Amino acid sequence: MSETTGCGQSCLHDLLYYETNKTLVIPSIQAGCLFRFIQLLVLLYVVGYVCVVQKAYQETDSVISSVSTKVKGFAFTNTSDMGPRVWDTADYVIPPQSDNSFFVMTNMVVTPTQTQSRCPELPSPSATCVDDCDCTEGHSNPQGSGIQTGLCENYSTTVQTCEVRSWCPLEIDAVLPKPALLAAAENYTVLIKNSITYPKFRFHGRNILPHINSSYLKRCEFNHATDPHCPIFRLKHIVSEAGEEFQDMAVMGGIIGIIIDWSCDLDSWAGKCYPKYSFSRLDNKHHVNNVAPGYNFRFAKYYRTADGEETRTLMKAYGIRFDVIVFGTAGKFGIVPTIVNLGAALSFLSLVSAVSDWFILNCMAKSDVYKKHKFTYLSDNSGTESISLGTSYGTE
Amino acid sequence: MSETTGCGQSCLHDLLYYETNKTLVIPSIQAGCLFRFIQLLVLLYVVGYVCVVQKAYQETDSVISSVSTKVKGFAFTNTSDMGPRVWDTADYVIPPQSDNSFFVMTNMVVTPTQTQSRCPELPSPSATCVDDCDCTEGHSNPQGSGIQTGLCENYSTTVQTCEVRSWCPLEIDAVLPKPALLAAAENYTVLIKNSITYPKFRFHGRNILPHINSSYLKRCEFNHATDPHCPIFRLKHIVSEAGEEFQDMAVMGGIIGIIIDWSCDLDSWAGKCYPKYSFSRLDNKHHVNNVAPGYNFRFAKYYRTADGEETRTLMKAYGIRFDVIVFGTAGKFGIVPTIVNLGAALSFLSLVSAVSDWFILNCMAKSDVYKKHKFTYLSDNSGTESISLGTSYGTE
Amino acid sequence: MSETTGCGQSCLHDLLYYETNKTLVIPSIQAGCLFRFIQLLVLLYVVGYVCVVQKAYQETDSVISSVSTKVKGFAFTNTSDMGPRVWDTADYVIPPQSDNSFFVMTNMVVTPTQTQSRCPELPSPSATCVDDCDCTEGHSNPQGSGIQTGLCENYSTTVQTCEVRSWCPLEIDAVLPKPALLAAAENYTVLIKNSITYPKFRFHGRNILPHINSSYLKRCEFNHATDPHCPIFRLKHIVSEAGEEFQDMAVMGGIIGIIIDWSCDLDSWAGKCYPKYSFSRLDNKHHVNNVAPGYNFRFAKYYRTADGEETRTLMKAYGIRFDVIVFGTAGKFGIVPTIVNLGAALSFLSLVSAVSDWFILNCMAKSDVYKKHKFTYLSDNSGTESISLGTSYGTE
Repeated sequence: MSETTGCGQSCLHDLLYYETNKTLVIPSIQAGCLFRFIQLLVLLYVVGYVCVVQKAYQETDSVISSVSTKVKGFAFTNTSDMGPRVWDTADYVIPPQSDNSFFVMTNMVVTPTQTQSRCPELPSPSATCVDDCDCTEGHSNPQGSGIQTGLCENYSTTVQTCEVRSWCPLEIDAVLPKPALLAAAENYTVLIKNSITYPKFRFHGRNILPHINSSYLKRCEFNHATDPHCPIFRLKHIVSEAGEEFQDMAVMGGIIGIIIDWSCDLDSWAGKCYPKYSFSRLDNKHHVNNVAPGYNFRFAKYYRTADGEETRTLMKAYGIRFDVIVFGTAGKFGIVPTIVNLGAALSFLSLVSAVSDWFILNCMAKSDVYKKHKFTYLSDNSGTESISLGTSYGTE
Repeated sequence: MSETTGCGQSCLHDLLYYETNKTLVIPSIQAGCLFRFIQLLVLLYVVGYVCVVQKAYQETDSVISSVSTKVKGFAFTNTSDMGPRVWDTADYVIPPQSDNSFFVMTNMVVTPTQTQSRCPELPSPSATCVDDCDCTEGHSNPQGSGIQTGLCENYSTTVQTCEVRSWCPLEIDAVLPKPALLAAAENYTVLIKNSITYPKFRFHGRNILPHINSSYLKRCEFNHATDPHCPIFRLKHIVSEAGEEFQDMAVMGGIIGIIIDWSCDLDSWAGKCYPKYSFSRLDNKHHVNNVAPGYNFRFAKYYRTADGEETRTLMKAYGIRFDVIVFGTAGKFGIVPTIVNLGAALSFLSLVSAVSDWFILNCMAKSDVYKKHKFTYLSDNSGTESISLGTSYGTE
Repeated sequence: MSETTGCGQSCLHDLLYYETNKTLVIPSIQAGCLFRFIQLLVLLYVVGYVCVVQKAYQETDSVISSVSTKVKGFAFTNTSDMGPRVWDTADYVIPPQSDNSFFVMTNMVVTPTQTQSRCPELPSPSATCVDDCDCTEGHSNPQGSGIQTGLCENYSTTVQTCEVRSWCPLEIDAVLPKPALLAAAENYTVLIKNSITYPKFRFHGRNILPHINSSYLKRCEFNHATDPHCPIFRLKHIVSEAGEEFQDMAVMGGIIGIIIDWSCDLDSWAGKCYPKYSFSRLDNKHHVNNVAPGYNFRFAKYYRTADGEETRTLMKAYGIRFDVIVFGTAGKFGIVPTIVNLGAALSFLSLVSAVSDWFILNCMAKSDVYKKHKFTYLSDNSGTESISLGTSYGTE
């Protein structure tokens, strides 16, 4: 007779009649407590850990940054080949400008008035020779100083080496000035201007904070304790914060990271968003398995003599490269992550009831009684209910 | 007698017999509607918001980019110390090449033929002196121009200052040319070539789009409205797009960000992936609490006179640094995020039934009747069911 | 009489009495199997795919990196205007140092001893003229070489062009040396030092691996097969790995990406974290719709003659810029992502029972019987149960 009513009505029922599970209430305090307790745990996890600790309800964006730096300071050297000389920013910052990093020369090996010509190679196992046969024209040894001409010349009264075509006289960088020539670099100061953006949140920030006035900026100097927001840094301070000794580092050079952390909670109820500075050495200081320790590079100043011949002054510049590394992730309340995390946690509640069901129906005294009432066993052959304990073991 | 059957069979039942919750159908239209309505909301959230708006079904990857730039243009200056002079790319782009940014000099203070010597410091409260006692040998004032020799010299007929060892004559950057010397820079054009990769999706892209032909590229010029995909930009246009006046900026210099947004939906059914350009000033234009406003740096050209003495021409270069900032996140359908978001949303359905159960069993007219049939109250002492209204208050 | 008991007690029941769903056990093997099978699928997805393949249980962090490079090698050229000349690092690496990339000059057009003066423009449709009327003073053509003086001069006996004020003589870059002047650059070697950090996990790494000894580093050369961890690369090898022919590329120049992939699984049970190198060409090699193919830039060396006049040597440097691109994402077990992914998967189990319920109650032989026992139909008018098949169609 159900067919007479037709689907129309039945479907309507399906849709608009309310369905709820029939529930068996077991008057067991332990069971109840256990159940509530586990529910509590899940709740605690959601509220306590996900929301408070992990801020999992936030969507995140990563930082876009722009950096400019300005180094100030003077150094004085008095060497045999250069005479007394004062070094200013234009002399020791190479290249004069670049984004995200700046190099300060602290030590050097200068080879003045080199010209394109031929001279005997520096003595080394691979360069020493007895006669021309030991030298092959056109050959250039990567460790060497130029391209061999095929001749074997007197390097000194005692030793002969292959002649090379190169910029002569050759650079002799065996002995490095120690202490560093520009040891005074430790007192240079650098002004770092950094402005950042979180495009997704349309948030803009600068490391020169609005509430700081100019007069303060004129005289301040960064210090974690006293001036954590001053954008002017003394090189010595940076290096020592990175756990290094400036004078040691000045000799061979190295790379120091000036790390600006803009990690922020941009939710309105959160605090202000300030940069946090930290410093660390980025190259490997340990000389074990360390090829080319420190940091150095060669560059030349080119001159032309009166008679048009080109000469150059070769500088092997040792120094400290400061990389300004800006990173950070901003978080802000987002509906999707919130839903996802709450939802995921909720679904554990279903797991909870499954578990406690199993526990109650198997491990408790009256479990048989509970089972009997929980489960309705439908016998195979007929449509009649037959509640027979024996065959109705089953857990949800 | 259940024990006789043994576990084997019962366990089999647990596994292979199908279990389903017994359900109570409440013929209440309001209840049904309410329930379906809430379900609908959850569904709408999933489909509408998560999928369409947030594209939460996608996994994402961030961009790897490479940029090269080429500036073109000429400027003419006619100053007392340099005479008539034409400036080309090699003169005003410093350094000649770099990745991700380029600097165009727009203004300068030139101090020609400096040599290493001694000269009286520029007048300033800290530099003026009456006699040598006011000057300490070896002292260098960060705001000063060199290292004091300890002597007090006549700077002019009226004022005496401490003598310093430095590159003399000293640079006088008090007065800045206004309008900027290289004001013509506003008509320079720059070609920006940018190629990007999304490693996770093996997607490669270039800002010179395949469907653009060379003849167009030869003559086109970027414009949001008319030529949004032309990679050639006029500096004046960039600066004005960033909301600045080129001639104002040219005097003191500054930093402009050329932001290329490669955010893309890489799903096959989504459209093409094109770069979007935007421009904004990155340094702080407001002179309030702004140390070292604008953007400038010093560099020197070194010469050697016939008698081997080294001289240099010091340039304090003011100009605009253009940082090409490439960012973007690509999204593509991913099974994991899809599952996570759907699953999370589904688990809300269980929350829904819990809520509506509570509502129906407490706030509706016939709630007592419903409760009576929903809950089976198991009495403590025996295993017999006793359905007594009074004691079966309870919500799921 | 329920009211007599008062809420106090009833609420207590709500809280502490255990509630479980009444369950109908259907002795149908197919149904049971179907149900278990689907459950199995969900389980497999979670364990197999989410955990093993996608490592969705991990939280991730992206890399912070610092790079320094050192190029070694010599080249010899013998051109008419420069004579025999040896090129070393200081000559062909421009600028001498920079972070994340280095440029190696492979080809050039040299224009020596330019001075600020006037000379006829190079012949071109826009520059040729008949008389002065064709030239407008002060006009500068972006494609041209300077600023027109308004005069029309003989460029050669046959052709007249507008005179321009510029650095004269003008550069003639129509003919490019082929093969490249510094073809020997293919044998240069570069040492790349890269140190990275994953701030969130406090993980530090270097591409010079601890277990590698110095003697090996002195002589090794990178090769995917034999020396995958040697940080010294031969330029020719890099270019060929990028699928290019060095000698072709050397003529016009280009940009090569040296991509270091630091993607790591930092979980303790995972293996070590080593960098993986790959190489690819970043600029567009195809000359179709390619403005300014290859990679080149102009720079100048400035000299001063005995009589103080400034001259310069203009170099149009063609070469290969190597961008060291460091990327990677580190993953490490995190409780939140784990919970989220497990939870989401669990919530599918509820979906599963809904689906199989529908299947069993509609598509199976005895579905009517099942329905009859699953659903308790509550009649509208009274509180009495009336189990009448016809009106109790409904699915969970």
